[in-house]
Amino acid sequence: MNYELYYWPGIQGRGEFVRLALEEAAVPYVDVALVPEERGGGEPAISALLASEEETQPPFAPPFLKVGRQLIGQTANILLFLGGRHALAPRDWRGRAWTHQLQLTIADFVAEVHDTHHPLSTSRYYEDQKPAARRRARDFIAHRMPKFLGYFERVVERNPSGASYMVGNNLTYVDLSMAQVVAGLRYAFPKASRTALRSTPHLVSLHERVFARPRIKRYLASKRRIPFNNDGIFRRYPELDT
Amino acid sequence: MNYELYYWPGIQGRGEFVRLALEEAAVPYVDVALVPEERGGGEPAISALLASEEETQPPFAPPFLKVGRQLIGQTANILLFLGGRHALAPRDWRGRAWTHQLQLTIADFVAEVHDTHHPLSTSRYYEDQKPAARRRARDFIAHRMPKFLGYFERVVERNPSGASYMVGNNLTYVDLSMAQVVAGLRYAFPKASRTALRSTPHLVSLHERVFARPRIKRYLASKRRIPFNNDGIFRRYPELDT
Repeated sequence: MNYELYYWPGIQGRGEFVRLALEEAAVPYVDVALVPEERGGGEPAISALLASEEETQPPFAPPFLKVGRQLIGQTANILLFLGGRHALAPRDWRGRAWTHQLQLTIADFVAEVHDTHHPLSTSRYYEDQKPAARRRARDFIAHRMPKFLGYFERVVERNPSGASYMVGNNLTYVDLSMAQVVAGLRYAFPKASRTALRSTPHLVSLHERVFARPRIKRYLASKRRIPFNNDGIFRRYPELDT
Repeated sequence: MNYELYYWPGIQGRGEFVRLALEEAAVPYVDVALVPEERGGGEPAISALLASEEETQPPFAPPFLKVGRQLIGQTANILLFLGGRHALAPRDWRGRAWTHQLQLTIADFVAEVHDTHHPLSTSRYYEDQKPAARRRARDFIAHRMPKFLGYFERVVERNPSGASYMVGNNLTYVDLSMAQVVAGLRYAFPKASRTALRSTPHLVSLHERVFARPRIKRYLASKRRIPFNNDGIFRRYPELDT
């Protein structure tokens, strides 16, 4: 089965959580963002699919994964699908539900990261909402980041199979996503994340282990990995990192 | 199997999406918020579970559903579980994934509704962030509400089984949630939602049909249904409804 990943070109964004799972599973996929526009890829391909009037199951927004003729949307939903198919999730439904629950909590966290630079409107520039962004980022750093990170730290710590993974004794897609979040926070908030991560040693070592896995390491060093930048979810605005 | 629903007392909030599914499925459940504190219910029961150091699969926040000894968290994840068990979702995985995808998009919409009155900080009062709330609400009304509602309208319209439901030709939990969102928007933004819903006739009639279903109608008229109020997600602040 051929996979096509649709996500906006030029940023990691939410698409990155899907890319990491596909790379770790070592399944072939087409990253439509990397296909030149002349060859039917890039932004026009994504917009065309979003605007299609024939699609009976249209996604609301990227990322979405095309699997044969089916479009699967919503990051956590895509990972639920991939996890079951490519051994990146427990086999039993209870374990799967728990893994998915954690992924949904990561999605909530990521949405709050995004809102630090866009607290008032996603359709306006950061520059148009700077004072509000400063207040929201201050609250994020003081309350929300430590709350979420503390929660995920406890999850790893209490894993009955040991603190090597978030769920059970094998890697799941949620470990990949958690590692990506740690990397993103370090990029966006180098100062504040250093302080916060001091209280979450399990997450720090989870991140190291995940990003050192052979396939992930190869991916991160490849051209397929788009560097963090100030168009994505994790943005480095020094004035927000206090 | 006994169900216990844990959600903050006094508000519909995200718990309401779960309540509507439980009511429609006519499965017995204990709504812990309604159990007096002297009898082990109410807010202390929820806080105790959240703070428990023994729970190996702790939820991040309410709502969560206790099923035997398992705690299932994240609204959409709870509905994924209940939908499969109580015939509130399609039988095939493809239909289930699509229903879940829609529910996750509703969750995103609901989070944006919440942020209209809390754009800067969830730990501070609305009164401390009024100017920012006004800007965020203006953006929500101008861009986000029509975008989300237009999307869901298309979903109903394009349902190959007919426009009676969002998915297939039977009621699913996502119809219940969509009807609740319409009710909530009408409460929170009576003026702006009237305008927006003029363009979404399918959603308006979906809401009517769902809220007229015998079990739902009985539930809505019962004391179990907490009225909308200004502590929940959908709040009526006339200054935001422009």
